[in-house]
Amino acid sequence: MPVIECHLIEGYDDAAKSRLCAALTDAVRIVVPAPAESVTVLLHEVSASAYMRGGTHRTPAPALPDPAQTVRAFLDAMEARDLESARNMLGAGFTMTFPGTDPMTSLDALVAWAAPRYRFVTKSYTAFECLPSQDEHAIVYCRGTLSGEWPDGTAFDGIRFIDRFEVMQGLLTRQDVWNDIAETRGTS
Amino acid sequence: MPVIECHLIEGYDDAAKSRLCAALTDAVRIVVPAPAESVTVLLHEVSASAYMRGGTHRTPAPALPDPAQTVRAFLDAMEARDLESARNMLGAGFTMTFPGTDPMTSLDALVAWAAPRYRFVTKSYTAFECLPSQDEHAIVYCRGTLSGEWPDGTAFDGIRFIDRFEVMQGLLTRQDVWNDIAETRGTS
Amino acid sequence: MPVIECHLIEGYDDAAKSRLCAALTDAVRIVVPAPAESVTVLLHEVSASAYMRGGTHRTPAPALPDPAQTVRAFLDAMEARDLESARNMLGAGFTMTFPGTDPMTSLDALVAWAAPRYRFVTKSYTAFECLPSQDEHAIVYCRGTLSGEWPDGTAFDGIRFIDRFEVMQGLLTRQDVWNDIAETRGTS
Amino acid sequence: MPVIECHLIEGYDDAAKSRLCAALTDAVRIVVPAPAESVTVLLHEVSASAYMRGGTHRTPAPALPDPAQTVRAFLDAMEARDLESARNMLGAGFTMTFPGTDPMTSLDALVAWAAPRYRFVTKSYTAFECLPSQDEHAIVYCRGTLSGEWPDGTAFDGIRFIDRFEVMQGLLTRQDVWNDIAETRGTS
Amino acid sequence: MPVIECHLIEGYDDAAKSRLCAALTDAVRIVVPAPAESVTVLLHEVSASAYMRGGTHRTPAPALPDPAQTVRAFLDAMEARDLESARNMLGAGFTMTFPGTDPMTSLDALVAWAAPRYRFVTKSYTAFECLPSQDEHAIVYCRGTLSGEWPDGTAFDGIRFIDRFEVMQGLLTRQDVWNDIAETRGTS
Amino acid sequence: MPVIECHLIEGYDDAAKSRLCAALTDAVRIVVPAPAESVTVLLHEVSASAYMRGGTHRTPAPALPDPAQTVRAFLDAMEARDLESARNMLGAGFTMTFPGTDPMTSLDALVAWAAPRYRFVTKSYTAFECLPSQDEHAIVYCRGTLSGEWPDGTAFDGIRFIDRFEVMQGLLTRQDVWNDIAETRGTS
Repeated sequence: MPVIECHLIEGYDDAAKSRLCAALTDAVRIVVPAPAESVTVLLHEVSASAYMRGGTHRTPAPALPDPAQTVRAFLDAMEARDLESARNMLGAGFTMTFPGTDPMTSLDALVAWAAPRYRFVTKSYTAFECLPSQDEHAIVYCRGTLSGEWPDGTAFDGIRFIDRFEVMQGLLTRQDVWNDIAETRGTS
Repeated sequence: MPVIECHLIEGYDDAAKSRLCAALTDAVRIVVPAPAESVTVLLHEVSASAYMRGGTHRTPAPALPDPAQTVRAFLDAMEARDLESARNMLGAGFTMTFPGTDPMTSLDALVAWAAPRYRFVTKSYTAFECLPSQDEHAIVYCRGTLSGEWPDGTAFDGIRFIDRFEVMQGLLTRQDVWNDIAETRGTS
Repeated sequence: MPVIECHLIEGYDDAAKSRLCAALTDAVRIVVPAPAESVTVLLHEVSASAYMRGGTHRTPAPALPDPAQTVRAFLDAMEARDLESARNMLGAGFTMTFPGTDPMTSLDALVAWAAPRYRFVTKSYTAFECLPSQDEHAIVYCRGTLSGEWPDGTAFDGIRFIDRFEVMQGLLTRQDVWNDIAETRGTS
Repeated sequence: MPVIECHLIEGYDDAAKSRLCAALTDAVRIVVPAPAESVTVLLHEVSASAYMRGGTHRTPAPALPDPAQTVRAFLDAMEARDLESARNMLGAGFTMTFPGTDPMTSLDALVAWAAPRYRFVTKSYTAFECLPSQDEHAIVYCRGTLSGEWPDGTAFDGIRFIDRFEVMQGLLTRQDVWNDIAETRGTS
Repeated sequence: MPVIECHLIEGYDDAAKSRLCAALTDAVRIVVPAPAESVTVLLHEVSASAYMRGGTHRTPAPALPDPAQTVRAFLDAMEARDLESARNMLGAGFTMTFPGTDPMTSLDALVAWAAPRYRFVTKSYTAFECLPSQDEHAIVYCRGTLSGEWPDGTAFDGIRFIDRFEVMQGLLTRQDVWNDIAETRGTS
Repeated sequence: MPVIECHLIEGYDDAAKSRLCAALTDAVRIVVPAPAESVTVLLHEVSASAYMRGGTHRTPAPALPDPAQTVRAFLDAMEARDLESARNMLGAGFTMTFPGTDPMTSLDALVAWAAPRYRFVTKSYTAFECLPSQDEHAIVYCRGTLSGEWPDGTAFDGIRFIDRFEVMQGLLTRQDVWNDIAETRGTS
């Protein structure tokens, strides 16, 4: 049933508007059990000269990039061992925690940690799930299964994983990883 | 900058309205990098006789319970070994997957599986994170650390975990669990 | 697709609001080929102290009675030969035109005209259709079939008729009648 | 007093917007006895990317043609005996009922029926009145007087008529005709 | 033509809403040369639980008292020589400047200054004019004519004056006075 | 807290929209003690074909010029003794009242009146304050200090003044002047 009107300074492209409409639709549905087709979203765009807050006109900030896409690009770069690209996606204060590790602050530390654990690993994604935080970062969860080769060259696959990322202004500031590698290794 | 107006049939209590305001605020901020204090949300409540869709008046559905609270209540019941209460929170088709398990469909199966693994386990929560899905269920992530006793009576703590739940109409329909128990056990 | 918001001074009862919602829904659909379920109407009621036009607060006029109901009550009174009730539903300047008559201004004239034509007549209604005019009156069409007895006592039925009424402030100001009585009589 | 805001996907031309504003104005005035100059209508047009229902962007349907104009064009074609043009304005399931006839489904049937009744007939229009239905068709009433020649070549005029049309997507699906021809013929 | 909608947390009384409607009407008319009767103002009141800014519900501040009434009450108290009441209407940092004086900070200073100038003075008011400032205070202008007696007991009247006040939260923080007393005295 | 939406026919330039936003912001703040940064103004511009009042589309009137700028231009012209330009800024029925004068209707009368009073005078402006009236004119107050030379060639400065203007459609219709010239002259 709900109708949501969102007033914005004009300047957002269609993709950003589409993401915004979808996010507002979903936001309502977590509280109001409305069937999807009864949730209507309208964006009203006003020119900068037609918006004033506190007696001052405002310039609209550019839309934030889709945090799920940022995470996906990072994971792709890591899988392709393109560390330089991956490094460019890291924000200030980035930390990454893997099963059994303390927080690491560099990709090199991660590579060193992983070396004795597997020759390589490939991710199959079940889903990316994305949500805002009350702070400035967005949160992205991605989960699926890992396949790859153990150090001795034997293959593994179907190992469940989940990653949690914090993304700020298009840069990763935190990664937390859980998976069943130890469980699997222990039973194999 | 954005101003969000949401038109609702009246009848939601203050807690539901508060959750709705917060969800809409957060939804905008995942796309528009507005500072928090510039996001305004207004709920306009109309009487049922003042709302018509498709030529028909509608009755507002009651607000959905907060899915994070549902999950928390379930986890508390499990920790207190109050299986009956926990069972009442499960919806049709409920499955739970733990590290190394296939999907289990009953709490008894879980208890049987856990018995040889630890005497008991207690969860400390870092955060509950809640998001809508495109389907009818909401998603709740909760993460933190586990403490407890191994079968031999020695204590453990600080083991990272993350749970992912799907919640539909106040009932759990899916739980997926990841943690570092195998990793820890392997290294201990 | 359209969403219609109508701002009103509060004070209309549910029936009036319902009629207003329906009238707005229909109005949109005569221009925009939207499926019914995608037309949403919201009435926003404000208190008299929250509405000002031209620097002056206004008192809302009471809702107009449903003109179709007014017409129906008049036709029922006529059929029951309750001329006094029917007369009380006539507004200033009322005229009625029947097949082959000049405009008549009194119910007595009508009764005198009808006397040699049929003993009595009963209306079965197919539909009442109601629309606003650009002037102050509403227009009501009602159509269906007539049954009754000719002056010689033989019965007739199934004769098509249509009436057009103008209704102002709950009173009839004009009635125009067409029917197939002459056609039927001619062929019988 | 009422202020009506109607939110639309952009793309309607000025004529359609004008008809929509007028239809909304009239719709209000059938319930609320507001003087014309106090009814304000605002159309808010949003781009397709700024509108979402049920999580999906929508494409606006083109405005429906003015049903009164459709009817007028049909009547003009009939009067000019341009049957082919008139036939192109008929929709699936078209029926027409004239005084004393069963429903006819083709213009040829009408022509055959009319042949012995009058040499030709010309319509003078008093008014076209147009209203939405609760179904998908619009309803158009047109009334006025007929003039023409009887089969014997004598002239007639000033005979009252009323036609009722149903119009769907710019095509006629039903015509019902009442007039005083039999009444007049009978008295002449 | 303009329609102004103002969204407020509920809790303002009718007098405050009336003043707000009038202030918004006037504000538009200083820019848009709309005839009065075409300016419509609607206040939409939402409950505190239906309003959120920056993720926080807000408590509405009570309406400010009408600054013109505050000024009038002060001037009445002064004229009645009720210095105690007048003093209670003064805010922190109050200053008053009269023709030829430096800013004075107390009513006693004023009384001392006025003593040799006139026995008493009475104000007739032509108008109070009130406007907001960009700061927190409101501005009130009042003008009219003075009558009274010179120290020698001769009467005067019709002397033009204008006072400018700054009013903050119902208290006077500044008064500036101009009048033609010196002009008149000089010519008498 | 308030959010103000103002619906306008499109066609106003950025400067007019900016003045309108500011005027609406200020109008709210004279009643509601909201901190500036919590007052949001949105102008919604609709095309002329998307606005109807009383069943009629309307043409937007051009924005009124800023009355403070009109007054400033007049005062500048007077100071520069450019009487012709100043005269062109006067509207029908213009009157001006100075300390001790009756209302004068021409600039020549003013010049004649001032000649024996000072050789020239220059204004330093503290502030221009502008407000709407309930009538068609706007009101502009300007105040500051005067400097110049007395007829005997001695200089003066720091003499307080205040002018009140009425401005209609960009032309001055009334000026009232108060100052401390007589007070100063009397004490010098």
